[in-house]
Amino acid sequence: MSHLKYQSAIEKLHECMEACNHCYDACLQEDDVKMMAECIRTDRECADICSFLEQALTRGTPFVSELAEACAKICEACGNECKKHDHDHCQKCAEACYACAEECKKLVA
Amino acid sequence: MSHLKYQSAIEKLHECMEACNHCYDACLQEDDVKMMAECIRTDRECADICSFLEQALTRGTPFVSELAEACAKICEACGNECKKHDHDHCQKCAEACYACAEECKKLVA
Amino acid sequence: MSHLKYQSAIEKLHECMEACNHCYDACLQEDDVKMMAECIRTDRECADICSFLEQALTRGTPFVSELAEACAKICEACGNECKKHDHDHCQKCAEACYACAEECKKLVA
Amino acid sequence: MSHLKYQSAIEKLHECMEACNHCYDACLQEDDVKMMAECIRTDRECADICSFLEQALTRGTPFVSELAEACAKICEACGNECKKHDHDHCQKCAEACYACAEECKKLVA
Repeated sequence: MSHLKYQSAIEKLHECMEACNHCYDACLQEDDVKMMAECIRTDRECADICSFLEQALTRGTPFVSELAEACAKICEACGNECKKHDHDHCQKCAEACYACAEECKKLVA
Repeated sequence: MSHLKYQSAIEKLHECMEACNHCYDACLQEDDVKMMAECIRTDRECADICSFLEQALTRGTPFVSELAEACAKICEACGNECKKHDHDHCQKCAEACYACAEECKKLVA
Repeated sequence: MSHLKYQSAIEKLHECMEACNHCYDACLQEDDVKMMAECIRTDRECADICSFLEQALTRGTPFVSELAEACAKICEACGNECKKHDHDHCQKCAEACYACAEECKKLVA
Repeated sequence: MSHLKYQSAIEKLHECMEACNHCYDACLQEDDVKMMAECIRTDRECADICSFLEQALTRGTPFVSELAEACAKICEACGNECKKHDHDHCQKCAEACYACAEECKKLVA
């Protein structure tokens, strides 16, 4: 079954989606929300596309390469934004984003 | 075709999704982001479920009532949050949320 | 962090989403696609709401109960449809749907 | 507001999402479902990414170009699949897909 060959990608996408959503949730509760506005935004963009691609892989989408290319770029951009902030949730999110971006690049034809 | 009987609901859901996403976008650019944190959060929850139900209606989902019941409650809660804030985008969003909640209630069996 | 208390629900939702998407993918490749039409339909409805709720739980949604109530009913309906078919992917999907429905019911206030 | 400059794209994406979901719904009710399997699949892939991009545009996503590039390719592929089938819903869907693909290409940086 096609989804088995994507097992590693599915895991990274899932971890990145969770990290981004936790970071989003935590950022909204920080004292310095204004400083976190761009992080809040990219977190949700990134969580959404990771969740989208994860689902697409599990249903045998014919569009792996097209979606993975977009996802890799969004993960990278989100990682770059998160990395700027010292909060633990931001640093962990940046790591998950970069790991996911690498995995997505492998899926691009 | 089943989606025609849902035309009015589809329109309200779409308007609510747009109003919530505009409000979310505008809130993230306000000076008082901290004050808007809960509004940012409910905006996105509401936009997402409205978009979900809108799509479900256009594809003949068998689960209209179940989804509309959840959507009505989320729209109402988002309207209540938005209504607290004087920003024009918040007031407009509250209106769209309440209108959508009414429409959703009609879909509940 | 709020998502930790939902760990068990997140896992069941994820397993159900994967099982539904695999079943959808496999049904579309069966010889008797016509017989599987309703299963194809409920699989995707169920995968979509499970994925939606899973994401919502990881981002601290204030609407756990509303979404879980809808999700429990959709999982149950999808399980009932899948159970009618002898294909291994349908039987496995039914199991995942029922397990997820139980977990969702625990989240309803 | 940024979403205004995307008004034309939002409309085409919405029309394409609706056309794809109607086509999916209708295909599942055709006598020759087996012949429509690939159309069912691409319809849902296309509806999902159109809905995703539409929402992203309304919330001021920083990732317009990345998402539009993927969406254009998926719309084109879905249009090519739908065009093969004589059903009215398939022909209409193909038209909506091609129109949306053109609009998406304009969004690619």
